[in-house]
Amino acid sequence: MIKTDILIIGAGPTGLFAVFEAGLLKLKCHLIDALPQPGGQCSEIYPKKPIYDIPGYPEVLAGDLVDNLMKQIEPFEPTFTLGERAETIEKLDDGTFIVTTNKGTKHHAPIVAIAGGLGSFEPRKPPIQNLANYEDKGVEYIIRDPEVYRDKKVVIAGGGDSALDWSIFLTDVASEVTLVHRRTEFRGALDSVEKVQELKNLGKINLITPAEITGIHGENHVSGVEVTKKGEAPFTLETDHFIPLFGLAPKLGPIGDWGLEIEKNAIKVDNTLDYQTNIPGIYAIGDVNTYPGKLKLILCGFHEATLMCQSAYQRIFPDKKYVMKYTTVSGIDGFDGTRKEAPKAVVKAIN
Amino acid sequence: MIKTDILIIGAGPTGLFAVFEAGLLKLKCHLIDALPQPGGQCSEIYPKKPIYDIPGYPEVLAGDLVDNLMKQIEPFEPTFTLGERAETIEKLDDGTFIVTTNKGTKHHAPIVAIAGGLGSFEPRKPPIQNLANYEDKGVEYIIRDPEVYRDKKVVIAGGGDSALDWSIFLTDVASEVTLVHRRTEFRGALDSVEKVQELKNLGKINLITPAEITGIHGENHVSGVEVTKKGEAPFTLETDHFIPLFGLAPKLGPIGDWGLEIEKNAIKVDNTLDYQTNIPGIYAIGDVNTYPGKLKLILCGFHEATLMCQSAYQRIFPDKKYVMKYTTVSGIDGFDGTRKEAPKAVVKAIN
Ligand SMILES: Cc1cc2nc3c(=O)[nH]c(=O)nc-3n(C[C@H](O)[C@H](O)[C@H](O)COP(=O)(O)OP(=O)(O)OC[C@H]3O[C@@H](n4cnc5c(N)ncnc54)[C@H](O)[C@@H]3O)c2cc1C
Ligand SMILES: Cc1cc2nc3c(=O)[nH]c(=O)nc-3n(C[C@H](O)[C@H](O)[C@H](O)COP(=O)(O)OP(=O)(O)OC[C@H]3O[C@@H](n4cnc5c(N)ncnc54)[C@H](O)[C@@H]3O)c2cc1C
Repeated sequence: MIKTDILIIGAGPTGLFAVFEAGLLKLKCHLIDALPQPGGQCSEIYPKKPIYDIPGYPEVLAGDLVDNLMKQIEPFEPTFTLGERAETIEKLDDGTFIVTTNKGTKHHAPIVAIAGGLGSFEPRKPPIQNLANYEDKGVEYIIRDPEVYRDKKVVIAGGGDSALDWSIFLTDVASEVTLVHRRTEFRGALDSVEKVQELKNLGKINLITPAEITGIHGENHVSGVEVTKKGEAPFTLETDHFIPLFGLAPKLGPIGDWGLEIEKNAIKVDNTLDYQTNIPGIYAIGDVNTYPGKLKLILCGFHEATLMCQSAYQRIFPDKKYVMKYTTVSGIDGFDGTRKEAPKAVVKAIN
Repeated sequence: MIKTDILIIGAGPTGLFAVFEAGLLKLKCHLIDALPQPGGQCSEIYPKKPIYDIPGYPEVLAGDLVDNLMKQIEPFEPTFTLGERAETIEKLDDGTFIVTTNKGTKHHAPIVAIAGGLGSFEPRKPPIQNLANYEDKGVEYIIRDPEVYRDKKVVIAGGGDSALDWSIFLTDVASEVTLVHRRTEFRGALDSVEKVQELKNLGKINLITPAEITGIHGENHVSGVEVTKKGEAPFTLETDHFIPLFGLAPKLGPIGDWGLEIEKNAIKVDNTLDYQTNIPGIYAIGDVNTYPGKLKLILCGFHEATLMCQSAYQRIFPDKKYVMKYTTVSGIDGFDGTRKEAPKAVVKAIN
């Protein structure tokens, strides 16, 4: 059982910044995310694209924003359950919560902050009948550890940046890389498209277009896929892994059944005070919440996270009065023992 | 008469970021500030100190944050009335407003956003009886244009960074620099204290401590000051200028009499929607406002400014429906004709 002060569901920019604000209040956070990496939409959908409306950043790449947030919260030592989806919640008699993931990991905390964005990112799956039988048995929708493919044969399907970039990357790892796409045109960074063309010319990527994977073979593990080129008869291709990279789509998912008030696929919160939901002790911040005038913007998530942490503090310590101090004035005391502070002015005589 | 869409009173971080959010909505802004430079508290009180809680910045100097905000809003061509205090407001029959400063400058806009922070920064004045008679006649509390002091004799009073730094700077401009402080100890950056010691040793700064200025002489302009060293009889020192640099203190000031609901020296706003005050068309954002759970933090001002602009847009264009677009997706079209946008993905065949 993982124990923490604030259990944050969703490690997007909002959830990450909540760790910082909680840290200022000496509260520890643990984050759950369905994705294998933190950063939410910024990391998953547009890491290399610029954002122009982060206050104080005329321009920042979404991926760099996430890196900066990770660096900012580092002193507060957040812990993570990644690659797992928060599935169920249980309220104990003492008002605390137990949240369990789809893999059975249990988390216990007095406060739950849902920062789930548009929902848990789930892979878009191709319509192949027996696909589910092979999940984690040679079929993977997300590449977590490329070493799994060392000296193996892999078939990647897809026509976007993920399919292009992983095909390029795996040529140095796998024994054979096949890229299958239902069109001849790919959509991605020019660099990546050109690199795949080059690797194809060198015979390092086996390209099959326009084509689709229409079946999977194998006993307990993938041993081959059925490839159908447009207008031709299907044929079988031997492979150890089939990796469909058709993107991830967010789904509110199980959180929708936790008894929270839902409106427009988002969780209704009290914006007059602290972004609390209809269940005391559960907050919703960032893209996942809704209230009159709500804007699904990163900078709004930051504000909501900050007010939420103040309220969480009061809930955990009903008798303490917290007096806010400016970080410039009081510095930052990390849980890791580090201290950041402004250089002090000197008081010195001139004679 | 200066005309604009949103008239912003206060050019602190909140007011500055409002320009950006208004710009996204194609609304123009003009800012009034009592200070000679934008940046509010960040520029005036702690420009060289680090802030640790700007989201996405593990550390940023307050002055750099202001510079970055100025750069971010540049494409939206904000205009400024600096060094003047917004004094009176008048609501016209058509619901628009005219705001007049202490120097008589008039501004006309359908929306007024008060981003006045802790108030208009006003200099702390020494208790010298006839001081007011010499204001702008040789007595200045803020140095706007150092060239005014070219080849003149100046007396600076104060013991902090401003007094130290301007004394240093003016040795290259004025014919004579005298620094008077009521203690022998100065409080400031080590560099500055040491530099003044050095210039004093070189005879370039005439240092009188512990002492106070107790009187001013001159017909229509300062011609001398009365200096009283602790425990000694006063003596007269010839000078063309007397510059007391005892810091600036914010005062809510005239805005307090505009008929707005005031609570704890701040303006009450409706935080359930758009940070509007009790007078429709007047908003209050950033440190200057109050609502349940309010935190006087920069990041909160950014959020408030953003929601305020959406509401202002609806007020100006009641019939238009604004659909928010991500900056990453739609790019930034500056009023100056510049365009920023994310590099586009290519769609390209691989053969
Ligand atoms: C192409 C694009 C461009 C954009 N441009 C801008 C822009 O210019 N400016 C701007 O402000 N915003 C922009 N946005 C929106 C911005 O990315 C979001 O507002 C922001 O990511 C929201 O942050 P969040 O932390 O609330 O949620 P998210 O970033 O969505 O993160 C939520 C996380 O929660 C996880 N999660 C959800 N449910 C569960 C569960 N049950 N179990 C485990 N994990 C779960 C998800 O996997 C996800 O990682 C853009 C979005 C896109 C797609
Ligand atoms: C030493 C110190 C350290 C701080 N550290 C932090 C920190 O670490 N993190 C953080 O988030 N915040 C910090 N703050 C607070 C932060 O600076 C404020 O929250 C922020 O400046 C508020 O911005 P604002 O734009 O709302 O108002 P301000 O910065 O106060 O700007 C308001 C401006 O309005 C002008 N104005 C007011 N009335 C009038 C008028 N009638 N006419 C003309 N002009 C007028 C003023 O002159 C001023 O320039 C700190 C503050 C101080 C003093």
